Amino acid sequence: MEGTNSLKAVRTAWVMTLGTEVVDGRVVNTNASFLGRRLTVLGFRVLGNISLVDDIDLISKFIAELLEESPSLIVTSGGLGPTYDDVTLEAVAKAAGVKLELNSRALEMIKEKYGSGGYTITEEMGKMALLPKGAEPIPNPVGTAPGSWLQVGGTVIVSLPGVPKELEEMWIRYVEPRLRELIGTTALVERYVEVRGLPEALISPVIKELVRRYRNVYIKSHPKGREVEAPHILVYVQAVSTEKEPARRLVDSVVSELIDKLKKKGAEVSLKC
Amino acid sequence: MEGTNSLKAVRTAWVMTLGTEVVDGRVVNTNASFLGRRLTVLGFRVLGNISLVDDIDLISKFIAELLEESPSLIVTSGGLGPTYDDVTLEAVAKAAGVKLELNSRALEMIKEKYGSGGYTITEEMGKMALLPKGAEPIPNPVGTAPGSWLQVGGTVIVSLPGVPKELEEMWIRYVEPRLRELIGTTALVERYVEVRGLPEALISPVIKELVRRYRNVYIKSHPKGREVEAPHILVYVQAVSTEKEPARRLVDSVVSELIDKLKKKGAEVSLKC
Repeated sequence: MEGTNSLKAVRTAWVMTLGTEVVDGRVVNTNASFLGRRLTVLGFRVLGNISLVDDIDLISKFIAELLEESPSLIVTSGGLGPTYDDVTLEAVAKAAGVKLELNSRALEMIKEKYGSGGYTITEEMGKMALLPKGAEPIPNPVGTAPGSWLQVGGTVIVSLPGVPKELEEMWIRYVEPRLRELIGTTALVERYVEVRGLPEALISPVIKELVRRYRNVYIKSHPKGREVEAPHILVYVQAVSTEKEPARRLVDSVVSELIDKLKKKGAEVSLKC
Repeated sequence: MEGTNSLKAVRTAWVMTLGTEVVDGRVVNTNASFLGRRLTVLGFRVLGNISLVDDIDLISKFIAELLEESPSLIVTSGGLGPTYDDVTLEAVAKAAGVKLELNSRALEMIKEKYGSGGYTITEEMGKMALLPKGAEPIPNPVGTAPGSWLQVGGTVIVSLPGVPKELEEMWIRYVEPRLRELIGTTALVERYVEVRGLPEALISPVIKELVRRYRNVYIKSHPKGREVEAPHILVYVQAVSTEKEPARRLVDSVVSELIDKLKKKGAEVSLKC
């Protein structure tokens, strides 16, 4: 096997983007792509994204199943608000086998928010301070519902609101710095190679052979044109390492070999950065 | 319980949008919103969307788990192409407990496509004709990989390519008409009510009470503004029935009651169509 580099222990992650409006297609799931990309760049191997309707039994069942495989991280979005169908933290608690309890720091955050608007705290506002026992609240600088950071065995479950501007701000300000502290720096190097004039089916054996030899490089072809009439394929090449240089060298040698081989097959090939 | 209408037996569906590029956030998952919306309008209750990396064991495990609950329909997108990591149909076959076999109609479709471009059929092209035993190929008018329609017990598994223009064309031309024949017509009626000046936490008890009384109506609030400083909430109201009129009447009475109650609480309310 060529090009072995100092890969760190792979940390796996799952994303759960919860909410009936995501599942029934009324909103396009940009939280999934935001979290998937951020986690990948941080060095996590994201295995999947699961969107579910606002159903506590369904959500807790899936979380419990994910926990059985002990991923490093599960990030949930959605279902933290004050309404009857905001059930995410109840589902997290159920799956983790802990109680939901009033978190005094979360309650302080909520009181401060609503207090600044002159509102008295109602039952529905207080509901947002119910966190799984043992969880730490994550401040929400944009909205009102705090997030939750809970350690369950070897897995951290981070729960954030579904409103994208709240989720993104909390992710960037509080979650990502803390994850980076835990896992250290990771370098992700990636390139796109643009191939025209050769169908994906004829590019495929070249990629297969490269994948066999370079086990630490991820290669995937993405058809963009019309396979027979106007073939146009983007080939994605990626490596992850603790340091940038070895990952860059590895990706560059795969890319140059790929370009050579496809040119020999008569394709028009260029590196797209 | 008020407003009971002639609801048909609920048909449940799951969507699986497969592909590492979806999970790692390099693409925004528009296939999920396309399929989720189309299925909902057809009358299916979509319970979730699952995106997974291109891993045959992981994919077949999730399909097998979904099959245990006997949903009416599972729709998969992605992983039908000629490359080493296109493993969806192998995963479907594994989960369904059938073999993957060369489908002669699928092979004809593929031969016709590549033949028209003057290509001889290679192993990679032939791979796209391997379907689960018992499956019917779904023609692909845009690309080359046929889809697959497989009945497994009470569940239909429809597998389509991941390239959106292929998926959408195949869905509209072949899948949707066939599903409509199977399930008959369904009427979905929906409204958005726009509420300003009242935080979601104060709207929440009103919705909860309506949901309790109108069991066949789905109501969900979506925060758009800033909860305390500038509250702006869209409330979605939906009903599904075999005929349009009862669903419309039901939704309209919920909406008018909702508007009345929120106005009494001092909110600025309008119907957004």
